[in-house]
Amino acid sequence: MYNRLQNIGSNVKKLRKKKKLSQIELAVEVGIDRSYLSEIENGRTNMSVSVLYAIADSLGVDIAELFKKNE
Amino acid sequence: MYNRLQNIGSNVKKLRKKKKLSQIELAVEVGIDRSYLSEIENGRTNMSVSVLYAIADSLGVDIAELFKKNE
Repeated sequence: MYNRLQNIGSNVKKLRKKKKLSQIELAVEVGIDRSYLSEIENGRTNMSVSVLYAIADSLGVDIAELFKKNE
Repeated sequence: MYNRLQNIGSNVKKLRKKKKLSQIELAVEVGIDRSYLSEIENGRTNMSVSVLYAIADSLGVDIAELFKKNE
């Protein structure tokens, strides 16, 4: 489970940087604390589906993008 | 949000039936209560990512399958 959450977090971070957003900018748009976004990006939290949808919406990607396997 | 959760629930139900599993059989395999699986299938709960992964694993599908849009 830990590696899968890390994988999601890594995708979030990559997509956030691609959009040239800081953690605080994305967090505000999603409506969560910056520290919570940081936990997500580090794979340290088991977030709910609604949080994932909100992140995908703010990043302008399909939610499936967040689950793609990466190295 | 409600419609997206309903969409996920509908996918879970469809895939479960395709595998000819009852709610109680899938719930036991996933490690959740049958009543909780029922809530998920009806789009009434905002489950965590780990629950979704466990459901996808038990159904033998990629987690992205659970997010596919259906009618």
